[in-house]
Amino acid sequence: MSNGYGVYSEVGRLRKVLVCRPGLAHRRLTPTNADGLLFDDVMWVENAQRDHLDFVSKMEARGVQVVELHDVLSATMADPAARSWLLDRKITANEVGLGLIEPTRAYLESLGPAELAEHLIGGLSTLELPDDLRGPYIALARESTGVREYLMPPLPNTLYTRDTTCWLYGGLTLNPLYWPARHDETLLMKAVYTFHPDFTGSTVWWGDPDLPWGQATFEGGDIMPVGNGVVLMGMSERTSRQAITQVAKALFEHGAATRVIVAAMPKLRSAMHLDTVFTFADRDVVTLYPKIMDAVHTFSLYPADRQPGMAIIDHGGKAFTEVVAEALGLPELRVIETGGDVYASERQQWDSGNNAVALEPGVVMTYDRNTQTNTLLHKAGIEVITIVGAELGRGRGGGHCMTCPLERDAVDF
Amino acid sequence: MSNGYGVYSEVGRLRKVLVCRPGLAHRRLTPTNADGLLFDDVMWVENAQRDHLDFVSKMEARGVQVVELHDVLSATMADPAARSWLLDRKITANEVGLGLIEPTRAYLESLGPAELAEHLIGGLSTLELPDDLRGPYIALARESTGVREYLMPPLPNTLYTRDTTCWLYGGLTLNPLYWPARHDETLLMKAVYTFHPDFTGSTVWWGDPDLPWGQATFEGGDIMPVGNGVVLMGMSERTSRQAITQVAKALFEHGAATRVIVAAMPKLRSAMHLDTVFTFADRDVVTLYPKIMDAVHTFSLYPADRQPGMAIIDHGGKAFTEVVAEALGLPELRVIETGGDVYASERQQWDSGNNAVALEPGVVMTYDRNTQTNTLLHKAGIEVITIVGAELGRGRGGGHCMTCPLERDAVDF
Amino acid sequence: MSNGYGVYSEVGRLRKVLVCRPGLAHRRLTPTNADGLLFDDVMWVENAQRDHLDFVSKMEARGVQVVELHDVLSATMADPAARSWLLDRKITANEVGLGLIEPTRAYLESLGPAELAEHLIGGLSTLELPDDLRGPYIALARESTGVREYLMPPLPNTLYTRDTTCWLYGGLTLNPLYWPARHDETLLMKAVYTFHPDFTGSTVWWGDPDLPWGQATFEGGDIMPVGNGVVLMGMSERTSRQAITQVAKALFEHGAATRVIVAAMPKLRSAMHLDTVFTFADRDVVTLYPKIMDAVHTFSLYPADRQPGMAIIDHGGKAFTEVVAEALGLPELRVIETGGDVYASERQQWDSGNNAVALEPGVVMTYDRNTQTNTLLHKAGIEVITIVGAELGRGRGGGHCMTCPLERDAVDF
Amino acid sequence: MSNGYGVYSEVGRLRKVLVCRPGLAHRRLTPTNADGLLFDDVMWVENAQRDHLDFVSKMEARGVQVVELHDVLSATMADPAARSWLLDRKITANEVGLGLIEPTRAYLESLGPAELAEHLIGGLSTLELPDDLRGPYIALARESTGVREYLMPPLPNTLYTRDTTCWLYGGLTLNPLYWPARHDETLLMKAVYTFHPDFTGSTVWWGDPDLPWGQATFEGGDIMPVGNGVVLMGMSERTSRQAITQVAKALFEHGAATRVIVAAMPKLRSAMHLDTVFTFADRDVVTLYPKIMDAVHTFSLYPADRQPGMAIIDHGGKAFTEVVAEALGLPELRVIETGGDVYASERQQWDSGNNAVALEPGVVMTYDRNTQTNTLLHKAGIEVITIVGAELGRGRGGGHCMTCPLERDAVDF
Repeated sequence: MSNGYGVYSEVGRLRKVLVCRPGLAHRRLTPTNADGLLFDDVMWVENAQRDHLDFVSKMEARGVQVVELHDVLSATMADPAARSWLLDRKITANEVGLGLIEPTRAYLESLGPAELAEHLIGGLSTLELPDDLRGPYIALARESTGVREYLMPPLPNTLYTRDTTCWLYGGLTLNPLYWPARHDETLLMKAVYTFHPDFTGSTVWWGDPDLPWGQATFEGGDIMPVGNGVVLMGMSERTSRQAITQVAKALFEHGAATRVIVAAMPKLRSAMHLDTVFTFADRDVVTLYPKIMDAVHTFSLYPADRQPGMAIIDHGGKAFTEVVAEALGLPELRVIETGGDVYASERQQWDSGNNAVALEPGVVMTYDRNTQTNTLLHKAGIEVITIVGAELGRGRGGGHCMTCPLERDAVDF
Repeated sequence: MSNGYGVYSEVGRLRKVLVCRPGLAHRRLTPTNADGLLFDDVMWVENAQRDHLDFVSKMEARGVQVVELHDVLSATMADPAARSWLLDRKITANEVGLGLIEPTRAYLESLGPAELAEHLIGGLSTLELPDDLRGPYIALARESTGVREYLMPPLPNTLYTRDTTCWLYGGLTLNPLYWPARHDETLLMKAVYTFHPDFTGSTVWWGDPDLPWGQATFEGGDIMPVGNGVVLMGMSERTSRQAITQVAKALFEHGAATRVIVAAMPKLRSAMHLDTVFTFADRDVVTLYPKIMDAVHTFSLYPADRQPGMAIIDHGGKAFTEVVAEALGLPELRVIETGGDVYASERQQWDSGNNAVALEPGVVMTYDRNTQTNTLLHKAGIEVITIVGAELGRGRGGGHCMTCPLERDAVDF
Repeated sequence: MSNGYGVYSEVGRLRKVLVCRPGLAHRRLTPTNADGLLFDDVMWVENAQRDHLDFVSKMEARGVQVVELHDVLSATMADPAARSWLLDRKITANEVGLGLIEPTRAYLESLGPAELAEHLIGGLSTLELPDDLRGPYIALARESTGVREYLMPPLPNTLYTRDTTCWLYGGLTLNPLYWPARHDETLLMKAVYTFHPDFTGSTVWWGDPDLPWGQATFEGGDIMPVGNGVVLMGMSERTSRQAITQVAKALFEHGAATRVIVAAMPKLRSAMHLDTVFTFADRDVVTLYPKIMDAVHTFSLYPADRQPGMAIIDHGGKAFTEVVAEALGLPELRVIETGGDVYASERQQWDSGNNAVALEPGVVMTYDRNTQTNTLLHKAGIEVITIVGAELGRGRGGGHCMTCPLERDAVDF
Repeated sequence: MSNGYGVYSEVGRLRKVLVCRPGLAHRRLTPTNADGLLFDDVMWVENAQRDHLDFVSKMEARGVQVVELHDVLSATMADPAARSWLLDRKITANEVGLGLIEPTRAYLESLGPAELAEHLIGGLSTLELPDDLRGPYIALARESTGVREYLMPPLPNTLYTRDTTCWLYGGLTLNPLYWPARHDETLLMKAVYTFHPDFTGSTVWWGDPDLPWGQATFEGGDIMPVGNGVVLMGMSERTSRQAITQVAKALFEHGAATRVIVAAMPKLRSAMHLDTVFTFADRDVVTLYPKIMDAVHTFSLYPADRQPGMAIIDHGGKAFTEVVAEALGLPELRVIETGGDVYASERQQWDSGNNAVALEPGVVMTYDRNTQTNTLLHKAGIEVITIVGAELGRGRGGGHCMTCPLERDAVDF
């Protein structure tokens, strides 16, 4: 791959990462629309931005190169071909509606790259179309409701860059996301990987937002390239077996992985992704929420010649952590459970207490508020760098969710 | 058009109609899955079938030719080309999942046309795959949930044939439906219109389930070709301006209509379609639920040369019924409101009290339970033929919803 | 006891029973208020009345004396002392509000006993107060909402007479019901037991609606005096340990029972009462829903001198049916499970398929719609008399719920 | 009154105020129980305590004497008579259950006053009973659920001291609160006013938690003694006309007020109390959320001899602010609306942006996060002292909700 991107573990040195700062999309969150946009509460955007900036600074201070989605998209939109490619897909009769295509396109074409990127992520409401471009079809749009009052929908969940694309060893997936409210995130990323010079030339294992995906949905929060040729995949509300088997097959065909371990999760809102209840803190150390992880049923997929291009093993009652340890050649995984009593541990899991992102082996970033779990990590010899979660955590995602590693080293097993 | 199909009014003599009897899909409704399948309660299927048969018999007794979807689809599936066309679209990696495609396809290919049609409408669960065709991927599927435990999803809302396709004067639309749970209904109908000899050769104004539809959703319950070149379209939760404007443009381009009147509805579950609160009972008689219809905002679309191929008029505070009367050249519409006191009228609207389907001018079919509204219709000189709604009504649809007219005469205005 | 009432088993000959026909309260059910009144859907009241009448006729045809609550309450209200007693408790500043007490009381005092009973059960809305009695406080009431628009709340759940009072051997309980929407039902029954000549003189083991009940709630659907000195009590969402232990103590102190078997139920809407998942069909035959009954945890309470006046045994993993069989001196209970496949059994439990009421050993009444469970009962030698459940079942109660036995014989064990 | 308490306006100098710091009750909030305890999200309790301490310090720095409920209750519980009075009411068969009364009482009696106060506010779970006091009834309690797993319920809404008691000029009300989850708050306050030497001797206008209150519920967030003999009362989901009319009558009988102005509020979760959408910032300045306040319907109650002891005037379409201004003898109220665009204003109202508490005329405390509304207040000449709302605001209450003034001066009109 020309750009040198690639992610070879969950805890090896993180060299380059993609994040997305809070912004216009979050300014639109209100008590009445937050649910539909997958947020539990509204956010004080200025403070969320401050806390996100601190998050970025702390990563940079540890030598991580941080790229930000608004910047990346703005640079992409400076290319007229990229701009046309993306607007042709977003400003359509099916999305914007006849009578509003011309004025919307005209307005967007009038914007500079940064402003355009801001609206591509933050959305465009009918109120924001300049007066001289409005026509009689605005009134029709106003009588519609919800997301339809937008000419382009806001995408506040871009904050969680982890989900939209995944680097798995030397290539990536462009993920079909479960909720319609997140659909267009992948389109933005395809524009970036197609046109931005730092991103072009990447190998795409699987995924194309231009194709319909049916039930084959796949979100990065469920996916972990742990090393040793192994990829963990949570089969959850949002990541389906239809997608998992296709990605496994693609990885096996490319020789990119030799085993996929599937964690069939109980279907709970609080366990929306594997990384909300299980992440790595060191080569052989994980932090997990036992109440949910104890209920996981584990399968393994391996390359095979016969149909459907892979073989499957059902691990039955064997513990997920045991299967993972064996796959990594470790005698066992050291487990740090969510801290505190029955009340506190439930709250800390909810507040992303197990959603750690490693900067290198034994060094993780987590939210400040989960003091009991952070203390347990510290006692186990993990260095814990905290960030403020008061605002950022309101969409139910922590440090792992807010980072999409582009380059991360392997570790030895 | 070779088959002579066409619908030229809402109340002219009904000559041919498509319905769909309750069956396997409704046997799958349970308290835990009913919501997701858009039903408010479970149904006693045997009695629902009896009541539906009575509905059909009463239409036939009045000279209407009734065709039934299971029969039509079975006849279609007798054509190997049709079978391949449809199964190629349904038995895919995105829907069925790798490892289950071959056994599922093998099982379905082993079925006769009638059995296959039964499962296409009624769904196929993992439990129904014969033992000798099951493989290790069944276990993976079992650990998934909800609609995913199906290899083909049940389509209980086919009961409401009104929504899936609409004949508007001499051609039809293949409708993109709002809820994913209804998505495949349109695919079945495209197979029918593509391969069944009685249906091929029809002119399709708009709609193709093979293309993504984004926010352009369109359901027949909102659409009424009232005659005089006019089509009424409810802009509702389920029928969007994105679709309405595209269909209007297509109708104008084909010279099929000269005006579309848009009823912008308040967004309420109880008013999911225009025909749940407003239907015609005679040439100049409508039955409506005033609490909702009084809040409708009305627009008209006309053919025009300039972009976007039509012109729009905002009728502001003018009553919808007044706009419709003028468009039909009537001095006024006679209005029969939902009967009973404040409690009874809300209940009767809910129980499809305003959802009448006309067999000819002044003759309508409604549910028996809305006795007060039925009495008002009777007093206004309308002949009311009742059917039992105890079971059929639990999906919130009445006689209008359960009928898709294929041939209906015009009326004079 | 002077009136000879008493219930000595669940399946002995039923001699006298209290029911309540559908009426005014159910005419008030609408889609928007049904939830708050604990109904899942609105009801066609005329048909529900017809089906209820058929239910009563079939019991009478088998020699059961049926008394109806409207009739009983009307007879009670013919006594001026009873009328004052009840209206003093209902027409108060806390319920009706200052400014509306006098006109409301004046209107109710003007009614005959039958009309008054109709409104006591069916409620009184502000709309029903005659014009000449309305004053300026009506406007204030109109600006309030929900149940507060009533001057007396409707009590549609009186349909389920089982819950409000229970005869347990030779005495009864006046039950504190869980939901505030049912609170006043018990007050009506206390008026009946205090003033109606057929009901006075009864021994009340426990319960007084004039006292606050806190968390000590108790509903008859959970309570079964099975004979042999044993009472079964479901500990459910609606029947709490705070009430169960108090009733057990009262029964033991009166020597009315020698053992209470507590079924600790999983907390699910579909298993709101023990009798929704478990009833007796014969001396040693029960019909039950295994999915829920298998999760029951069983305790027994016995008389004891030491604090708190009883002893408790935790039966741990032992099956509930096994504990009950032993308590009755039976080698085992014959079990008839809900019929049909995984879909049908869930639907039939929901439709009160296990909610049978016995008229004598081996003769039960159930809803017609649960054909598969009814067939299994029939095959087991039980005589099944069916009633129409299309309307009556919409509040999630069957024959057992709709009957409060006043006299039932013992059976031998 | 011996203690000199009394509140004579909404904005006069605040001299003494009751607050309640976050604590044990909030440590129990989890994602699964938060809704039932009326909180939208869990809270980082340590930070909430820090922010609350800052809130208190800033009031003290402005000369306000702040008393804290844990301290006050602890001092009360040092009196054995008070302890008995309160535990006799809380450790009962109806609440704790037979078999658990003795051990629970024994444990609580063993605690010092401060520890006891902590549990009275923070609740006592079955897990917290010492091993040697546990008996076999603990197992029965464990099989129950939700609030019933507590031997005393946690009362996290004590944080909002405004609601539980209100000083209205020279006397107070002991308020019957709407939600059962808050019921016991008033009992604690009655203990304080009955036994604590600083609180005894107060005149109680109305309210007694020992009596049943039916629909007569009353919460301080709806009540404002604005001066000039006027009291504003929001008629909301939580404050009913049944209570408003009783309190008005009591105030008039005592000569404590000459007019009550009733704001009939639209029934919305976001407008749970009048003070969530309308508070005073200065003698003639209010901050309000127009979207809701514009829909208020206003009534006035005056003393009168005839039944029911008061007269009512319906102000029809007249604006609430206009009625209030006239009642205070002001030419008009200066209105500061919630700041920001359509998104921001909805969010700021939700985040308690209009929930200001005045320390003296023109000096208010609000949350930091509502920067746009705070700026508007500042521009109108109001001094705004901010506190951190990130954690404290998660129960949907701001500075006004968290303060119960005990002594506040009048202002001149």
